[in-house]
Amino acid sequence: MSEDKIKQEAPSARTHVKRYNWLARYDRETVEEILDAVPLAHVGCMINGVPFVTPTFFWREGDRVYWHGSAAGRMFKVLEQQDICMTVSLLDGLVIARSAYNFNCNFRSVMLVGRAELITDEAVKTEKLKNFVNGLIPKEWERLRPVHPKEIKATAVASMSITEASCKIRTGPPQDDEEDYEFPS
Amino acid sequence: MSEDKIKQEAPSARTHVKRYNWLARYDRETVEEILDAVPLAHVGCMINGVPFVTPTFFWREGDRVYWHGSAAGRMFKVLEQQDICMTVSLLDGLVIARSAYNFNCNFRSVMLVGRAELITDEAVKTEKLKNFVNGLIPKEWERLRPVHPKEIKATAVASMSITEASCKIRTGPPQDDEEDYEFPS
Ligand SMILES: Cc1cc2nc3c(=O)[nH]c(=O)nc-3n(C[C@H](O)[C@H](O)[C@H](O)COP(=O)(O)OP(=O)(O)OC[C@H]3O[C@@H](n4cnc5c(N)ncnc54)[C@H](O)[C@@H]3O)c2cc1C
Ligand SMILES: Cc1cc2nc3c(=O)[nH]c(=O)nc-3n(C[C@H](O)[C@H](O)[C@H](O)COP(=O)(O)OP(=O)(O)OC[C@H]3O[C@@H](n4cnc5c(N)ncnc54)[C@H](O)[C@@H]3O)c2cc1C
Ligand code: HEM
Ligand code: HEM
Repeated sequence: MSEDKIKQEAPSARTHVKRYNWLARYDRETVEEILDAVPLAHVGCMINGVPFVTPTFFWREGDRVYWHGSAAGRMFKVLEQQDICMTVSLLDGLVIARSAYNFNCNFRSVMLVGRAELITDEAVKTEKLKNFVNGLIPKEWERLRPVHPKEIKATAVASMSITEASCKIRTGPPQDDEEDYEFPS
Repeated sequence: MSEDKIKQEAPSARTHVKRYNWLARYDRETVEEILDAVPLAHVGCMINGVPFVTPTFFWREGDRVYWHGSAAGRMFKVLEQQDICMTVSLLDGLVIARSAYNFNCNFRSVMLVGRAELITDEAVKTEKLKNFVNGLIPKEWERLRPVHPKEIKATAVASMSITEASCKIRTGPPQDDEEDYEFPS
């Protein structure tokens, strides 16, 4: 896959792809393309000594990602005191080869690491939640029963800068070993 | 959703569902049903101070889950020294309500926490990889070019007991607030 070996710089040492590094992309366009392809993320956050992985909706606005939940939720209480990881992944298909070792899958994924922050201003929080809803269903917010202030208070909205981001993308057919070609496929 | 309030015991304090706890299930049948519905997991593991979330294939055999990767991969080096989290999630659909606050989604998810171990015996490792491949595509292993011992050496297979597991399942229509019913839907 040498034609795929696009040289690019990782934004930091900890986001530098080592395994199958010819699948790596670090450009903002690719990062945004993958983030915008699916609304579901998995957030890794250390809670009581366990790196819990929480599936959650997220949305992107410019160079930041956002996600929401309960203001009383355990993740939002500890989020700002540590670096976290948000992963977004798409499984595009199985890749069937002549040997089990060369089985693979086509996929697209982004890992973001960094420090998240909670939005405290209620007006900003409301605006972000509106963008979340309207991002999924255009103009939906305007149709709905207006939000109550207590609903905004009960909701936590976290945000993180898309600074330390890496992508991996695999497309195309299997890569069989040269000597496996005589083996029936 | 009071009809859904099935009382069940969580297997441990840290797997006890608190938020929307009427969606919780802890029985083995439900855990296995969700795990068997999709081959993709997200594994949370603390690496250099970051709770990295790695998308990875996994498979279940009886009361254990398994996943594989590079024997030189960073996750497999630190896996046995910490408790980790494996999350499997399915997004079944958006739930549109009369108020933004009552938006939701239908979903199924499992969180597993515990201590994983690496399989060191090469014969067992080979057997497990065979089960992985044949689990995705029945009888596929027998069709393939036989594995080389060096391929098995290069491969790490991790396994974890399904002991501390919790599920959340949401199905059905939105739950509007009583006073929102006069609002057009
Ligand atoms: C749908 C899907 C299924 C997968 N199945 C498997 C599997 O079964 N077995 C397996 O070994 N791997 C699988 N992968 C790849 C896996 O996510 C990791 O990329 C791989 O295991 C290497 O992990 P590592 O931590 O050793 O990588 P390293 O290269 O050591 O990680 C260094 C840095 O590279 C970046 N990086 C690593 N992985 C990714 C990624 N997936 N996306 C974006 N950036 C990344 C991060 O910034 C990370 O900090 C799968 C990926 C996807 C999306
Ligand atoms: C597809 C999908 C999308 C989601 N989107 C959002 C969202 O946008 N915002 C949001 O707040 N939540 C969302 N959730 C729910 C989210 O995963 C958490 O369940 C929720 O945020 C509560 O997290 P908590 O850590 O505060 O829960 P707590 O109840 O405090 O967690 C305690 C224990 O409950 C168990 N548990 C928690 N969550 C889950 C789970 N999802 N599956 C299985 N066991 C679990 C674990 O054992 C955990 O240790 C989504 C879930 C799915 C599957
Ligand atoms: C399309 C839009 C939305 C979707 C898909 C969505 C989805 C979800 C999901 C899946 C959960 C987790 C429930 C659980 O733990 O099982 C959740 C929690 C929550 N959502 Fe939303 N939501 C949306 C919009 C909003 C908006 C606009 C608000 C606020 C005005 C809001 C407030 C909350 C709160 C407070 C919780 C935490 C509930 C609790 O744990 O007590 N949501 N949301
Ligand atoms: C259906 C079966 C399989 C699938 C879908 C699959 C998929 C994958 C994927 C997606 C990766 C990650 C590649 C990356 O980092 O981008 C991977 C890595 C790896 N797989 Fe598999 N695999 C399968 C079977 C096997 C088998 C049977 C073996 C061993 C005999 C194996 C050995 C490996 C090894 C060693 C790596 C790490 C490569 C590296 O980082 O250098 N795989 N696999």
